[in-house]
Amino acid sequence: MNFHGGDIYSCQGEVLDFSSNINPLGVPESFRMALCEKITDFTRYPDIQYRALRAELAEYLGFDDPELVIPGNGAVEIIYKTILALESARMINLSPTFSEYARAARQNGVEVIDLNIYDASFTDLDFSLLFAALIPNSLVVLCNPNNPTGTFVEREKMCFLARELAQKDCFLLIDEAFIEFTDHYPENSMIGELGHYPNVILIRAATKFFGMPGIRLGFGVSKNKQLIRGIREHLEPWNVNAAAVLAGCTVYRDQEYITASRAWVKEEREFLFHQLSKIDGLTVYPSKANYHLAKISRGKMDAWALKNRLLEKGVLIRTPDGFNYLSAYHFRLAVKDRPSNQRLVEVLREVLSCHG
Amino acid sequence: MNFHGGDIYSCQGEVLDFSSNINPLGVPESFRMALCEKITDFTRYPDIQYRALRAELAEYLGFDDPELVIPGNGAVEIIYKTILALESARMINLSPTFSEYARAARQNGVEVIDLNIYDASFTDLDFSLLFAALIPNSLVVLCNPNNPTGTFVEREKMCFLARELAQKDCFLLIDEAFIEFTDHYPENSMIGELGHYPNVILIRAATKFFGMPGIRLGFGVSKNKQLIRGIREHLEPWNVNAAAVLAGCTVYRDQEYITASRAWVKEEREFLFHQLSKIDGLTVYPSKANYHLAKISRGKMDAWALKNRLLEKGVLIRTPDGFNYLSAYHFRLAVKDRPSNQRLVEVLREVLSCHG
Repeated sequence: MNFHGGDIYSCQGEVLDFSSNINPLGVPESFRMALCEKITDFTRYPDIQYRALRAELAEYLGFDDPELVIPGNGAVEIIYKTILALESARMINLSPTFSEYARAARQNGVEVIDLNIYDASFTDLDFSLLFAALIPNSLVVLCNPNNPTGTFVEREKMCFLARELAQKDCFLLIDEAFIEFTDHYPENSMIGELGHYPNVILIRAATKFFGMPGIRLGFGVSKNKQLIRGIREHLEPWNVNAAAVLAGCTVYRDQEYITASRAWVKEEREFLFHQLSKIDGLTVYPSKANYHLAKISRGKMDAWALKNRLLEKGVLIRTPDGFNYLSAYHFRLAVKDRPSNQRLVEVLREVLSCHG
Repeated sequence: MNFHGGDIYSCQGEVLDFSSNINPLGVPESFRMALCEKITDFTRYPDIQYRALRAELAEYLGFDDPELVIPGNGAVEIIYKTILALESARMINLSPTFSEYARAARQNGVEVIDLNIYDASFTDLDFSLLFAALIPNSLVVLCNPNNPTGTFVEREKMCFLARELAQKDCFLLIDEAFIEFTDHYPENSMIGELGHYPNVILIRAATKFFGMPGIRLGFGVSKNKQLIRGIREHLEPWNVNAAAVLAGCTVYRDQEYITASRAWVKEEREFLFHQLSKIDGLTVYPSKANYHLAKISRGKMDAWALKNRLLEKGVLIRTPDGFNYLSAYHFRLAVKDRPSNQRLVEVLREVLSCHG
């Protein structure tokens, strides 16, 4: 069963894919050029210690210790191995969120408590509900900004959470896979705070912001040496392939791509939000990321029916499958380029008004 | 600690790398072209079910059920997950061999019995010694042709082994990572026998034969549906990246590369064996693959000392680290192109005669 976006492999014909929330600018040209030039990199095993890649990532993050940056075959691999290494008594999953956290915990025999501590508009989280569910050695997972709600926890509030969890002998995994899309990046990242919170691991990825989920490059960063060593022991050798190494050593220094992407996504997110807000029968939630959660607020059509109606018009949306605490009327929309966004608004208006 | 060949990242300057036993022809041109053309493949998540890739691999293998072909992030990933899925009582490792089998078992809490059932010249295996070590639900691992010895178990003898193991409720993992380099491929592969032996899984990889260890593409094949399902459950999603998918969908149909590689490796293996055999103070073992195990047979210099002496001359060999039952005087040499092979013979002769 596929509970993820982007399953265009199951669709027929040309489709505007709003189900996969990745950078609309696509693969950076710098990477395309590097890949064609450095094809010979494939004739070698990757450096089993990934020295150059770790140094590059640390440099990008402004993080002082490359030894404590650990690259993975996508962020998902590091999330799985973190759970293996921590041997937590319990995972507290803050739903609705990315389904792989809970799947990873369950696969490794860790009990999952799935809490919805969001307010009705998904703009804030009530941590007191979370604290009540903690036992010592719990692992709390927080996607920031959160997928699919677009909610963002500011740095000060995140520090408060990390501090409280430390006092309760609990660990915090923060998935910042989408953070480069937020307006106040990099100041809002927890990267600069890691020294104060050895009970925190940060997860990042090239997947979303650099428009290349196909590359499978993610990494973990923590000041907790024991944890990083534990993750490393669970990783299989050469887990990151030469294409992903090359991507990591190229795109993070592509300042032009980074600047252009941030400007573009900000503008298009605001455009899309504004346009979607005007559609009758639709609620759209504010988001700090490159996607919007939305809800069919009138009529009987649910998200799956809407998906089918939109697919007839060549538009694919993300139904709520796999997201706990979303209703059958919620769905997620990626922010894409202007013509695509306009087309989306048009067909949504058409389908929802026909129905209403 | 790195117990693998190809660690050129720790070397200074230009080096002729005989430590890594991959195809000297390098990355197929067909893949280089596909990669430059299909860069947009990276803008999508790989098909989470890898349908096209599995179909392509099944076609290449002449295997009738793509559902039972399971691709991995390198063969190593499938080996690890097979061990996880089988929950064997014991692994019987036939050393000297690739060190990852035993590492994978130990990492998953499976006891490893490490047997040397080879004769002195590494041309044959005495299975009676293996049978004595079996308990029900044992997993036997056999690399065929074997790394680093180059020994090959013919199909008939392998079927006998599989049959005996089935009777004893034991499982057989056959790693055919190097089989395309052997003279009688594809007739000598166990692929055509899988229907008779549901207690067998075959592991293959693009790594060695297609000269691209950087790509990380391996796969498992078995007629055991329960096992394949078990492996799949342990795999993280999107474990094979877009570059590896593209490689798999390109190189296995590159008949020109396949034919040229096989002809070249056969010729150069014979040339190298012949030349090495003539060096005083050196024993070289016959091999069916694209590498030769060798041994310093006179004098006090061990393989590490030899490695250092050769590195001064710009040649890197594979010392016996991580290979059980090899002596301190054994080392492995890849078969490379003619000028490289000639240079190797020259410097080996020089260093060994100086020493003697």
